[in-house]
Amino acid sequence: MLSREENELLTRTAPGTPMGDLFRRFWLPALIPNELPEPDCPPVRLRILHEDLVAFRDTEGKVGILDALCPHKLAPLFFGRNEECGLRCVYHGWKFDVDGNCVEMANEPPDSAFKDKVKVKAYPVEEWGGLIWVYMGPAHLKPELPQFEWGRVPETHRHIARWLQTTNWAQGMEGEIDTSHISFLHRWMDQSQAPQRRNAQRNFSIVDGAPVLTLHQTDYGFVYGARRNTGNGDYYWRVTQWLYPMWSVIAAQTWPIGGRAWVPIDDENTNVFGYNYNAEAPLTEEQITMIESGRAFPPRTTRERHMLADGTVIDHNVGVANKTNDFLIDRDMQRTVNFTGIWGVNEQDRGLQEGMGRIVDRTREHLGTADQATIAGRRALIRMARDLQEGIEPAIAHEGHKYGVRSMDIVSPEGDFNRFMEVHGDAGKAKV
Amino acid sequence: MLSREENELLTRTAPGTPMGDLFRRFWLPALIPNELPEPDCPPVRLRILHEDLVAFRDTEGKVGILDALCPHKLAPLFFGRNEECGLRCVYHGWKFDVDGNCVEMANEPPDSAFKDKVKVKAYPVEEWGGLIWVYMGPAHLKPELPQFEWGRVPETHRHIARWLQTTNWAQGMEGEIDTSHISFLHRWMDQSQAPQRRNAQRNFSIVDGAPVLTLHQTDYGFVYGARRNTGNGDYYWRVTQWLYPMWSVIAAQTWPIGGRAWVPIDDENTNVFGYNYNAEAPLTEEQITMIESGRAFPPRTTRERHMLADGTVIDHNVGVANKTNDFLIDRDMQRTVNFTGIWGVNEQDRGLQEGMGRIVDRTREHLGTADQATIAGRRALIRMARDLQEGIEPAIAHEGHKYGVRSMDIVSPEGDFNRFMEVHGDAGKAKV
Amino acid sequence: MLSREENELLTRTAPGTPMGDLFRRFWLPALIPNELPEPDCPPVRLRILHEDLVAFRDTEGKVGILDALCPHKLAPLFFGRNEECGLRCVYHGWKFDVDGNCVEMANEPPDSAFKDKVKVKAYPVEEWGGLIWVYMGPAHLKPELPQFEWGRVPETHRHIARWLQTTNWAQGMEGEIDTSHISFLHRWMDQSQAPQRRNAQRNFSIVDGAPVLTLHQTDYGFVYGARRNTGNGDYYWRVTQWLYPMWSVIAAQTWPIGGRAWVPIDDENTNVFGYNYNAEAPLTEEQITMIESGRAFPPRTTRERHMLADGTVIDHNVGVANKTNDFLIDRDMQRTVNFTGIWGVNEQDRGLQEGMGRIVDRTREHLGTADQATIAGRRALIRMARDLQEGIEPAIAHEGHKYGVRSMDIVSPEGDFNRFMEVHGDAGKAKV
Repeated sequence: MLSREENELLTRTAPGTPMGDLFRRFWLPALIPNELPEPDCPPVRLRILHEDLVAFRDTEGKVGILDALCPHKLAPLFFGRNEECGLRCVYHGWKFDVDGNCVEMANEPPDSAFKDKVKVKAYPVEEWGGLIWVYMGPAHLKPELPQFEWGRVPETHRHIARWLQTTNWAQGMEGEIDTSHISFLHRWMDQSQAPQRRNAQRNFSIVDGAPVLTLHQTDYGFVYGARRNTGNGDYYWRVTQWLYPMWSVIAAQTWPIGGRAWVPIDDENTNVFGYNYNAEAPLTEEQITMIESGRAFPPRTTRERHMLADGTVIDHNVGVANKTNDFLIDRDMQRTVNFTGIWGVNEQDRGLQEGMGRIVDRTREHLGTADQATIAGRRALIRMARDLQEGIEPAIAHEGHKYGVRSMDIVSPEGDFNRFMEVHGDAGKAKV
Repeated sequence: MLSREENELLTRTAPGTPMGDLFRRFWLPALIPNELPEPDCPPVRLRILHEDLVAFRDTEGKVGILDALCPHKLAPLFFGRNEECGLRCVYHGWKFDVDGNCVEMANEPPDSAFKDKVKVKAYPVEEWGGLIWVYMGPAHLKPELPQFEWGRVPETHRHIARWLQTTNWAQGMEGEIDTSHISFLHRWMDQSQAPQRRNAQRNFSIVDGAPVLTLHQTDYGFVYGARRNTGNGDYYWRVTQWLYPMWSVIAAQTWPIGGRAWVPIDDENTNVFGYNYNAEAPLTEEQITMIESGRAFPPRTTRERHMLADGTVIDHNVGVANKTNDFLIDRDMQRTVNFTGIWGVNEQDRGLQEGMGRIVDRTREHLGTADQATIAGRRALIRMARDLQEGIEPAIAHEGHKYGVRSMDIVSPEGDFNRFMEVHGDAGKAKV
Repeated sequence: MLSREENELLTRTAPGTPMGDLFRRFWLPALIPNELPEPDCPPVRLRILHEDLVAFRDTEGKVGILDALCPHKLAPLFFGRNEECGLRCVYHGWKFDVDGNCVEMANEPPDSAFKDKVKVKAYPVEEWGGLIWVYMGPAHLKPELPQFEWGRVPETHRHIARWLQTTNWAQGMEGEIDTSHISFLHRWMDQSQAPQRRNAQRNFSIVDGAPVLTLHQTDYGFVYGARRNTGNGDYYWRVTQWLYPMWSVIAAQTWPIGGRAWVPIDDENTNVFGYNYNAEAPLTEEQITMIESGRAFPPRTTRERHMLADGTVIDHNVGVANKTNDFLIDRDMQRTVNFTGIWGVNEQDRGLQEGMGRIVDRTREHLGTADQATIAGRRALIRMARDLQEGIEPAIAHEGHKYGVRSMDIVSPEGDFNRFMEVHGDAGKAKV
């Protein structure tokens, strides 16, 4: 449970809010490179942290992320011409490069110096590790890119997707650090129809629905182990990382390993980025087919012009199963096949999280011992956001190398988390 | 005409409002039993008096009406599993019975006492008289069920339906006690195409469009007689009851007799319940066909997921003719067949009432002598709501037997209402 | 750039606002006559200056524009019966004539004088010059109709249409006095596919995208000349008028000449009226085909029930290319055929203007020398609105004859605007 004030602090990310300031200290994923597939391709409309933006790839392949509106008369740059290293507003022909410089102001006299005085807001952009990144904070505080393992592997070794969730970012993020829900929300009574049948261990979640959690604070956030009894005297450990300000690395028994990032669009919508990777080998065709089936992450989506509450349009990948169709719930399936009657794992998560309303009222919650990680994640973020308001910058934003952690999903006789990490931590690269 | 303050008082029913408090002193219809057709069937989403709820029928057939959201993390119970005498939230497996007790908390340690400390809000429910009823007020003030005649007859003798009206509740309710509108809104110039051709008396409404009203206050609300000249020296009397807080018993010349209840969803939407019954015999197949044709009440509807203004979804029966299609108005029909060019009687009512806006601005009205009953109904409700704020409880909520009244629709030589009631009141069971 | 307060003043037109008061000093176009095609035809729903209205044509052909709601119980008159010189509310049969008098109150006793005390709001209406006009201001200040040349020609010589723009009125109006945008927004690289191929002069806009503007204040507003170099030593002049409070007469080389009026629906929607006319001869079939093709003005539209943000419905002509389909932008067409990839001239304008949001934030603009006319138009309106608040009435509202001006589009050796007007002004009837 949070106080009303804490819930506001956690969920609000507009410019000038404490959490909005904190997000503006980190590189954030903005797009998948193939959303801007080639030089001079059509621009893409975005909203990030309540700011309306347009992204384009110029003639040299560089990506620019600009204010959505031309500074002249606020016409939408989305309709612009993407030509010769600049995006040209079609209303009066002003042209801007990826750095926001006005490189041509064709409706003013040739000798006018006006164009040198006008810039469009442009944020620093990096294209790295299968993502287009944006930094929306103060120039002199520009951070390091987080050196995730999936970012450093060859492109063939990873798969990344972006999709829309119509809730506040924190609502989705909290699902990542909520190990106990997998025993229920993602339970398949009929394992033969489950999306991933790696081995029998997955069933341990069903055997023991009340895991014992141990959580360690780290520089990057925290790592936590969820210990379940296997029923055979051993323990089934799931070790998951949560990294500032909104990353997860989720446990998986075999490659690929996956996780997500939750980037606020505004307080009521979120850009979700989901990755899957194999650090040791290219993803196989079978694995890619599985990933793209929509059975887990990412969900099945269609490319849409999505209208936000205030009428602004963004370009996004919208779930085929969504709020307007009750996530295609099948009550017969719910009786016999899986716990929800909803087909895909993300669809199950989104179904419940979107059903909580756009911004869940955390003053009404009743959290138990299973919610330790959720509580820890909120506290860490709220503390960091408050610190920043007092001038304490988040050091981790400048320590990209600390993001190179890996999750674990292992059966072991070890029952103590410290001991378990001593034995397995190295092998699994799960750097605490 | 009401003052702005009176209009607010009349129309607002959220928790803590005077009218909201008054509604919370009565049993209210919530659903039709066949919306929860069998044990362990899918739950139904409801909003009543601004409170989001979920209804389910458990394994033993008992109906529970719970808060829409699980108290753990506010996940929607609608997606829950309806299993073994409880509705189980699929997010983390908490399970609740019809009384709101948490009977299982599967993600907490088996020895945890946490579940005994957590309840979900659950309201008392009764299934009686062809309705599922809910009581949303203080436990120690639980009222009696209103003993309407249609509630006491065998199931074969009645027909009840529920549908959506997208206006404030009072806007619909006032149509019930507005006898003069039937001469216009429901006039059929071509009687051969009219929905109900019982006998020639219906034409009296056309012969005399300006009825003389006499109204008697009663414990249950009021009864009023509308007297029209037949043109033959006799009087055509329609005697209608209005009962706290929002019931009508409408005059009809022959069985079935019908009426409605108007239960606020929120200030801008209403659950309408319409009944038709014969106190003396089962409804015939022909009568049921007529009732279900949509020519009168209930209207033609489709079952829909209906999204309210704040994005919340409720399950409802939505009129085929509605605001988005101008109630299928046919201007040619309007010229020659009926007064509106709209096909069904409820469709005519809804067309006009929804066209007034969600909450009509009663400060702008110009009421005449024909609006006596409307004025009386408002005054009675406003007085009762104000009384309640001063601690005076509505006695009628505990006098269910007083609801056993019956309407009348009779031609008589009697011109005085008191005399008319002496002569006809007993025969017609219209207890004043 | 405007201050926030100036932007509010410019854009807000509800009753009681300064700009709303100013608009209420002029006759405003309300409908095209063929929207009420014959006596006793179905009424049409309108909103003008934030007031919900209903228009009907009575049995004698006279047009009435009334409050949308019946004064009795605020039922929508749109559903009314249009019969025998009056619109009758179908709820209780009250009937009103075009002047708002209640001519029958059928649900009150025949001897009641109540009907003489009740009026429905009714505004003065004129049908003249191919338009239905309404005056919504104080009765004693009723102005003159503006004697536009297109209003005084025979009906065969003109074409007028009405359509919806989903932005504030000023956003559209400013496009009219923004000559430099035609060099970009309306440029056709492939002239063979351009909507109007009158002669080669149109290309001058492309040769010189930075016109030199000269602007003269006049009683009716202003006239301005935009001078471009032809590249042959001559000058290409476009002379355009802007007239209070929101009219344009746009330059064209040959007949027909056209222009627009921008009438606020509310702050976020606008009724656009577009005219095309030939002062000297009837429009040819070919010209009408061209006008109605949607290549320029008016756009392609469909007749729709259009729901405004508060749920109120108006009857309007809605663009086939609109915000929900990105104005059917074709990025391939944008590369090679025209500057925008959008097909029609109005569609190009609307695309950009609607993309700026409902009410553009003028505090963020960066206006240059090309925006002189825009700045002048705003200033003139703001000054006139402020004057009116201090009791200075707009004289021009009573000088209808001053609206009889004509635009010009001419190549000339004259480089000075005054000199140019001396030489060409008379011939072109462009009265300064």
